[in-house]
Amino acid sequence: MSNLFELHRALFERAQQACRDRACWSPFPEMPGKYPNAEAAQVDGRSAFTAHLLAGRFELDQPGRVGELGEEVSPYTQEPLGIRYPQADVNTLFDVAEAAMPAWAAAPIETRIGVLLQVLDVIYREHLFEIVHAVMHTAGQSFNMAYAGSGVNALDRGIEALVYADQAMRAVTPSARWERRFGPTDVKLQKTYRLVPRGVAVCFACASFPTWNAWPSMMASLATGNPVIVKPHPATVLPMAITVRVFRRVLAEAGFDPNLVTLALDSMAEPLGQVLVKHAKTAIVDFTGSVRFGQWVERNAHPAIAYTETAGCNTVVLAGADDLDAALRSLATTLCMFSAQMCTSPQNIYVPRDGVDTPQGKVPFAEVAQRLAAAVDELTRDPKKASMILATIQSPQTLALLHQMNEAGATRGQVLLSPRAYVHPDFPKARTSTPLMLKVTPAERDLYAEERFGPISFVIECENADDALTRATMDARTAGGLTAFLYATDEAFIAQAEAAYARAGAQLTTNLTGAMPLNFAAAYSDYHVTGLNPAGNATLTNLSFVAGRFGVVQSRRPVVA
Amino acid sequence: MSNLFELHRALFERAQQACRDRACWSPFPEMPGKYPNAEAAQVDGRSAFTAHLLAGRFELDQPGRVGELGEEVSPYTQEPLGIRYPQADVNTLFDVAEAAMPAWAAAPIETRIGVLLQVLDVIYREHLFEIVHAVMHTAGQSFNMAYAGSGVNALDRGIEALVYADQAMRAVTPSARWERRFGPTDVKLQKTYRLVPRGVAVCFACASFPTWNAWPSMMASLATGNPVIVKPHPATVLPMAITVRVFRRVLAEAGFDPNLVTLALDSMAEPLGQVLVKHAKTAIVDFTGSVRFGQWVERNAHPAIAYTETAGCNTVVLAGADDLDAALRSLATTLCMFSAQMCTSPQNIYVPRDGVDTPQGKVPFAEVAQRLAAAVDELTRDPKKASMILATIQSPQTLALLHQMNEAGATRGQVLLSPRAYVHPDFPKARTSTPLMLKVTPAERDLYAEERFGPISFVIECENADDALTRATMDARTAGGLTAFLYATDEAFIAQAEAAYARAGAQLTTNLTGAMPLNFAAAYSDYHVTGLNPAGNATLTNLSFVAGRFGVVQSRRPVVA
Repeated sequence: MSNLFELHRALFERAQQACRDRACWSPFPEMPGKYPNAEAAQVDGRSAFTAHLLAGRFELDQPGRVGELGEEVSPYTQEPLGIRYPQADVNTLFDVAEAAMPAWAAAPIETRIGVLLQVLDVIYREHLFEIVHAVMHTAGQSFNMAYAGSGVNALDRGIEALVYADQAMRAVTPSARWERRFGPTDVKLQKTYRLVPRGVAVCFACASFPTWNAWPSMMASLATGNPVIVKPHPATVLPMAITVRVFRRVLAEAGFDPNLVTLALDSMAEPLGQVLVKHAKTAIVDFTGSVRFGQWVERNAHPAIAYTETAGCNTVVLAGADDLDAALRSLATTLCMFSAQMCTSPQNIYVPRDGVDTPQGKVPFAEVAQRLAAAVDELTRDPKKASMILATIQSPQTLALLHQMNEAGATRGQVLLSPRAYVHPDFPKARTSTPLMLKVTPAERDLYAEERFGPISFVIECENADDALTRATMDARTAGGLTAFLYATDEAFIAQAEAAYARAGAQLTTNLTGAMPLNFAAAYSDYHVTGLNPAGNATLTNLSFVAGRFGVVQSRRPVVA
Repeated sequence: MSNLFELHRALFERAQQACRDRACWSPFPEMPGKYPNAEAAQVDGRSAFTAHLLAGRFELDQPGRVGELGEEVSPYTQEPLGIRYPQADVNTLFDVAEAAMPAWAAAPIETRIGVLLQVLDVIYREHLFEIVHAVMHTAGQSFNMAYAGSGVNALDRGIEALVYADQAMRAVTPSARWERRFGPTDVKLQKTYRLVPRGVAVCFACASFPTWNAWPSMMASLATGNPVIVKPHPATVLPMAITVRVFRRVLAEAGFDPNLVTLALDSMAEPLGQVLVKHAKTAIVDFTGSVRFGQWVERNAHPAIAYTETAGCNTVVLAGADDLDAALRSLATTLCMFSAQMCTSPQNIYVPRDGVDTPQGKVPFAEVAQRLAAAVDELTRDPKKASMILATIQSPQTLALLHQMNEAGATRGQVLLSPRAYVHPDFPKARTSTPLMLKVTPAERDLYAEERFGPISFVIECENADDALTRATMDARTAGGLTAFLYATDEAFIAQAEAAYARAGAQLTTNLTGAMPLNFAAAYSDYHVTGLNPAGNATLTNLSFVAGRFGVVQSRRPVVA
C-alpha cells in the first residue's frame, strides 16, 4: 500500500515546494482542451454523466440504507435530473465511521497520504469530465469553469491540504528517549507520541461550488486519521456522490474500510444539518454555505471543532487607474463570472464622488458608473458570449432576490443595469440572468451591507478615496469579506489600503487588468479566507486548517536496561 | 532591538532542537540551590516579596485606573496579604491594547521573539524568587514546587510556546513571484503575505498554578502579534501582577507600547470573566481553571477562539507490578504532591477485585488499598515531611469539599484515610490537610465520576484488569483526563491500555517508580493536555496552540516590468 505513496512521491514533493515558495504550479492542465486525449475523455465524461440520468438511481454500496432521495434540478434545463440516491440512517453512518477509524489511524502517515493522492489521481484520470457535467447540471457552472474551478483547481486544493496535514503531523516526533537526574538517580524514559484523530468529521458541500472546499476539507480530515461523512447540498448531490464512490473504491482497494467516507443525504424540506452538527459523535465540522447556517455552526458545533467558509461583501475601491477602460473591463468580467455566484465575486464598488484619477484627469463618478455598466452590458449582450461567462443561475431564490433588489434599487437608487434572462444557445430553457447593477449612496447601506448572492452589484458614491477605503474595509469587518480589489495610482494610498485590508482580513488584488480573472485564486499560492472576519474561520490552506484535526497522546515508561 | 534576538539566539535554537527531538533539556537549574548565587538571590527574592506586603500597594503604571482591589489571603498564614492592586476600566484596556497592536504586529518575527525571550530572561534573573514567594503565599505551593513548577518549568513552557509560534509563522513565505499564462498573455504577480494577529487576547490565570499555563499562553499570543489582557484569579494576583510589570517594562525598553500587556482585576464577589470573554474586542481567550467556567468559555467565546485547560478525573489502573511497594510509594507521593491540587494529580485508582499481579502472587484488593493508604500515611505523618510534599490547601472551598466527601465516603464506602490538619513547622496557622482516601465500588460512581479538587482519591474495586481499564478510560472520555498511570506486567495488556488511553486522550505513564514524580511534565518533551477529551481543548505546546492566533492576509499586484 505504501507503493501508492511512492507512485505519487514526486508529485507530492513538488507540491510541498510549491506550498513553500508559492510560485505558480499545478500538475494538471489548465484548460479542458489540454487534458490527455481531451476529445475522447470529454465524450466519455458526458456519457458517464448521461448514464446517471438514464439509470435514475445512483448505486452507493454503503450501510444503513433506509430509503431514497433526490431532488436535483438542472439549471440548464430546469428539469429534474431524476437521480435517486440512497438515504442512510445517520446513526449507522457514525457507527461505521467510528469502526473504520482505528485501522486507518494506525496506518503510517505515508500510507494514508498515498491512498488519498491516489483518490485524487483516480478522480482526475477516470471521473473528471463526469464530474464537470455533474457540476454543470447541479451548480450551473459553465463547462470551462466546472473543469477549472470544480475540477483541477479543486484537486490542487486537495493536494495542498495533504501537504499541510503532512507538515503538521511531521512536526511531532514519533518517539523520544528522555534522561534526567532526580537527586541521586538517573531516570530514563522511553516516550511514544501517537497522533490520534479527533473523530468523525462532517463535511458540508455547498450548492454552487461543491468540490472546491469539500475536497480539501475531506483530505485534511482523512490525512489526519478521521473518517468523513459528506453532506452535500440537496440541490448539488451528484458531484459529491461520485466523489464518495471514488473514495470508497480506492480505500477498499488499498485494504481499508470504505466506511471511512460515506454520504448523508437530506432534502430541502427536511434538512439534516443541525442533526449532524449536534450529533454526539461529531468531532469535526467543515462547512461551506450560507452565512446564516455557517454562523450557527460556529456557535453550536462545540464540542466539535468547526472550519467554516461562508460569504461576505467583497469590495472594490476604484480611486485611480492608468488605463481606466482596462480596469473597468476586468471588473466587469469579474462581476459577470458565473453570474457572481462565487464567494470571491465583488459586490460593493466604492468610487469617489469627484471621480477617478486617470492620466487624462478625473473621470467623474457618474461616468465611471455608466462605463462600468456599459462594460458589463458589452459582455452579456451576445447570448453566446453571455453563456460562456454568466452560465446559469443556480437557484430560483437567486432569481427572486435579483428581482426584489431591482425593485428596491429603482426606488432607492438608480438602476444602471436591469437583469434580464438571456437565451442560452445550447440550453434554451436555462435559468439565466444578466447582472443587476445599482448606483447608490451610503444612505442605501441597508441594501448593500450584507451579501446579496448572485449577479448584484452596487456602485457607491463616496466622498473621496479615503472614505471609499474606510467604508469598504468596514464592510469586510462587519459583513465579512474574502477578496477585495483596488485600483489606485497613488503609492501611498495603495500602502494605506494594503494595511487597512490586512486589518479587515480580506485578500487584496491591486491594479490587475488583462487576461487573468480578478478573483482567480491559485492553489499553492493564494490563501483563501483569512479567518479574520465573519466570512469564515478557516483558511485554505494553512497549518491552522489541519493542526487541530488530531491530538498528540503520549505514553512513557522506564527504559528497560 | 533585534539584538535581543541575537542575545538569545543560541538558547532559542537549542530550544527548537529540544522541541524536535523531545529529549531532556532546560536552560535553567532544576533545583533552587543550583540557581546562580542561590543564597543571595533567595534572600533578595524574599525581600522583594516582603516589600510588596509592606507597601500594601502594587504600583502598575497602566491606563484606565478606576480604583483598587485586593483580597488575597496567604494559605500559609491565613491572613490577608493586604496588597491593593489598581483596578482598570475594561474598555480602556481593550482600547489601549488595540492601539498598541499595529506597531508590534509590524515588527519582524525575530524582533518580537527577541523581546519575549528577554522578558523570560528578566523574570528568571531578577524576579524568580520574588515570584516563588508570591506563588507560595497565594497558590500555597511549597518553596521547591513554586521554584520548579511555577518558576523554571513555566519559563521553559514559555520558551516552548515561542518555538512553535516561530515554526507556524515561518511556514508562511513573506512573498512570492507568480507567473502564469492566461491564453496569449503572461501574467506576472508580486504577492505579499502578511501575518495578521487575530486581536486582543484575554488570558485567565488560575488560583493554584498561575504562571504555568499563563506564561506560555501569553507568549503564544504576543509572539504572533496579539496584545494580552491578563485576568488573574482574585486569590492569586501577585505572581501575575509581577509578570505584567516585567512584560510592560521590557516592552517599553525595547521601544514598544507597554499596553500590549495589561492587568484586569476582579473580585470573587464581582467576577469579570464573562464580561471579558464576551467583550466585542476579545479575539482570543486562554483559560485555565474550573471545568464549569472552562466549558462556558468553550461554548460562548465565539467569535473569539478559545484555548482551555480545565481538569479531569485522572485515573490509575493497578493491575500488576514487579515491585508493588515501589509502585505504591510512587502513587502515594503523587497523591500527596501539593495536596493533589495539580491538574495532573490522580484521583480514581482502579484495582481488580482478585488482586494485583506480583512476582509473589496476587495481592488482594483490600490489602493493596490498605498498603497504598499506609504509604500515603507514611509520607504525611511527620509534619516536616508533610509540609515539603503536601504544602497547603489553596482555598477554604477545598477543605469544605474534603470534609463533605469524608462524610459521604463514610456512609457510601470505606474511609481508608481521613483528612486531618497537620501543623506546618514554619507556618503554624497554615491551611493544611492530609489526604482523604476512600475505598469504593463502581456503585459509588456518582462520587468519583467528576473531579473532586484537592487531596481526595478513590480506590475502586473492579472485576478484573480489563474492567479497570474500561472504567478508567471511560472516566477520561466523559469527565476529562490529562494524565493516567498504569502498573502492569502483562505486555499485551500494556499495549491494550496504551491504545485505550490514546483513544481516551489521556497522557499515559506506565510502570514508573523511583525518584521522578509520576505526574512530572517536562517542557519540550511531555505534551500537556491532548485536546481530545473534556479536560481542555488546547495542548502545551503544539502547532494547534499557536497556528490560529494569526491569519495570513495577502496582497497581490502586477509586477511592474
